[in-house]
Amino acid sequence: MTRMTRRAFGRTALTGGAATLAAPALAQTQPEYVWRMTSSFPRALDTIFGTSEHFRDRIAELTEGRMKIEIFAPGEIVGGLQALDAATEGTVEMAHTGSYYFVGKNEAFAFGTSVPFGLNTRQQNAWLYQGGGIDICNDFYKGYNLIGLPFGNTGAQMGGWFRREINTVDDLKGLKLRVGGFAGRVFARLGAVPQQIAGGDVYPALERGTIDAAEWVGPYDDEKLGFAKVAPYYYAPGWWEGSTTIHLFINLDAWNALPPFFKTAIATAAAEADLWTITKYDALNPDAITRLIQQGAQLRWFSEEIMGACYEATQAVMTETAEANAEFRKIYDQWKAFQAKENFWFQVAEVPFERFVYQRSRDKG
Amino acid sequence: MTRMTRRAFGRTALTGGAATLAAPALAQTQPEYVWRMTSSFPRALDTIFGTSEHFRDRIAELTEGRMKIEIFAPGEIVGGLQALDAATEGTVEMAHTGSYYFVGKNEAFAFGTSVPFGLNTRQQNAWLYQGGGIDICNDFYKGYNLIGLPFGNTGAQMGGWFRREINTVDDLKGLKLRVGGFAGRVFARLGAVPQQIAGGDVYPALERGTIDAAEWVGPYDDEKLGFAKVAPYYYAPGWWEGSTTIHLFINLDAWNALPPFFKTAIATAAAEADLWTITKYDALNPDAITRLIQQGAQLRWFSEEIMGACYEATQAVMTETAEANAEFRKIYDQWKAFQAKENFWFQVAEVPFERFVYQRSRDKG
Repeated sequence: MTRMTRRAFGRTALTGGAATLAAPALAQTQPEYVWRMTSSFPRALDTIFGTSEHFRDRIAELTEGRMKIEIFAPGEIVGGLQALDAATEGTVEMAHTGSYYFVGKNEAFAFGTSVPFGLNTRQQNAWLYQGGGIDICNDFYKGYNLIGLPFGNTGAQMGGWFRREINTVDDLKGLKLRVGGFAGRVFARLGAVPQQIAGGDVYPALERGTIDAAEWVGPYDDEKLGFAKVAPYYYAPGWWEGSTTIHLFINLDAWNALPPFFKTAIATAAAEADLWTITKYDALNPDAITRLIQQGAQLRWFSEEIMGACYEATQAVMTETAEANAEFRKIYDQWKAFQAKENFWFQVAEVPFERFVYQRSRDKG
Repeated sequence: MTRMTRRAFGRTALTGGAATLAAPALAQTQPEYVWRMTSSFPRALDTIFGTSEHFRDRIAELTEGRMKIEIFAPGEIVGGLQALDAATEGTVEMAHTGSYYFVGKNEAFAFGTSVPFGLNTRQQNAWLYQGGGIDICNDFYKGYNLIGLPFGNTGAQMGGWFRREINTVDDLKGLKLRVGGFAGRVFARLGAVPQQIAGGDVYPALERGTIDAAEWVGPYDDEKLGFAKVAPYYYAPGWWEGSTTIHLFINLDAWNALPPFFKTAIATAAAEADLWTITKYDALNPDAITRLIQQGAQLRWFSEEIMGACYEATQAVMTETAEANAEFRKIYDQWKAFQAKENFWFQVAEVPFERFVYQRSRDKG
């Protein structure tokens, strides 16, 4: 499963005390580990797909060529949504995906990525890295023979592209919206009709009116899809993804067989990739939102009525799920206590600082 | 200057094609580089000082012992505020400090850390890592024979501890406030009297009323100082530090002499340390603010009148400084354009998401 190719002479031989003949320089570049990473994300998504390339290069540098990672786009080995299974089964050592794609297997997969009205990006990172989040999630992922590391964040996403304005909860009735996972369940509770449509089919479906709305990520990624032409109302915020963590999943047997050095290199490079991704989104989105507006996107915000109804529906879905699913409940209870404390603190210094600065920024135009 | 101790047999020998006798296992642990890092921060500041220890351990792991970093607290080699000079001159290879401590040398040192009413933490990272910030700052630091890497962030800080409430700009007149750098200049403009007092002397000065107020960092770090007992009004936000980046400065000659592998290890570990630090603050501050309130701290927020006057004074100070200092101006112009775009985008999705979630969090108590 771990396609290991020990070098003819490696570190082990060197420390073993035996005389060794130095190999030619070429041998230096023979990796000890060649690992395959299958992605749920298309190459065209240069932000998230770019994270895996950044990480691959960093691992090559940090291991001085001793570990080589080969990246595969969806369909090259398995389909995008088979990435998790492929890592579980050891078809590949690594999967680049979002845990929340797999809430159909078990709703507990939601927390690692995002739950509706959940943590913001910094709170999510605080929970994952310091608040026990990575550990409690990995305790759950263990059941799938996986270890998961945070591997990028998009920040708060947009609510998506709508063919018509929606103002009241009544406007949601019968609304055919391309949205998945937990958010789909919440929308369904309010009478909307969540749709699962493959990426390439969304534009024609929106154009023909087969669906009324579709959500994707945020300005920079959305711009490439051209939805502004066929569904100009661009809603904010994506209350179901106030922060979205992407994952690096690693087959647990492959991980456990790694020497500590390689584990450290992977964990460090994954954390750096996590930071790299959010800084990329935060640097690219501002120009993209401006361009989208120039291209005809009309910014709208979900009304208080709609936000309130979605919030209440979310609480109902979370509570019901916790009652039915002990693995979900275990993470939810720990997560919820963390969120309450974070929300109090962020209102003390962060919010008053930002509110004032944004106000002055608006005044200056 | 770079205290290099090449191992008896090293990587170079191995790739040279010559026969080599393996050294005993002990030789493996002899570092090729032993570098000294002098800190501006006391060991008691376990958050920020902890960053340097986390980084030191990570570098040892990533280089498999080939690079050893020795950390020195203020006074062990040089004083806390001599850290930058020590790295410039090569007394040490690394300084752990905040660039903004050195605005007295040149105001352009402010941007790398924080300027009043500046970027929030994510915007600051977006600027540094993707918006040209690291490069434009390093172009300036080059004049001091240094390269600087972001090495931790505190998030938005608190405004500090006040012996009495302040409500109007008139209340600032004659106020003796321990605050440094740019914020001190802004306060002085409004009639306050900024004080420079060594850390250990602040508590007695506050207790005796020699000073009226003092700022430090945020709840977790502030709690250790016990200021709540003598100056109970705990103001927010620290508008002069909406985000505060700590630095790893490296002597440029030492850096340039490093092989690429070591540069990559340092840059990657520094980025990971940057993320580690903000997650630590964000995870520790919520409990600390609650404890401080239980201990008698009384939360207050600067009034709109005070915030507005400080904002106007800041703009005047920034403009005057830019007119007098071309190095400051060069960074300021680039930074200001970046800030304007960021502030627009953050109000589209982040702010509406957070505002709603915080509101519901308050409703639930």
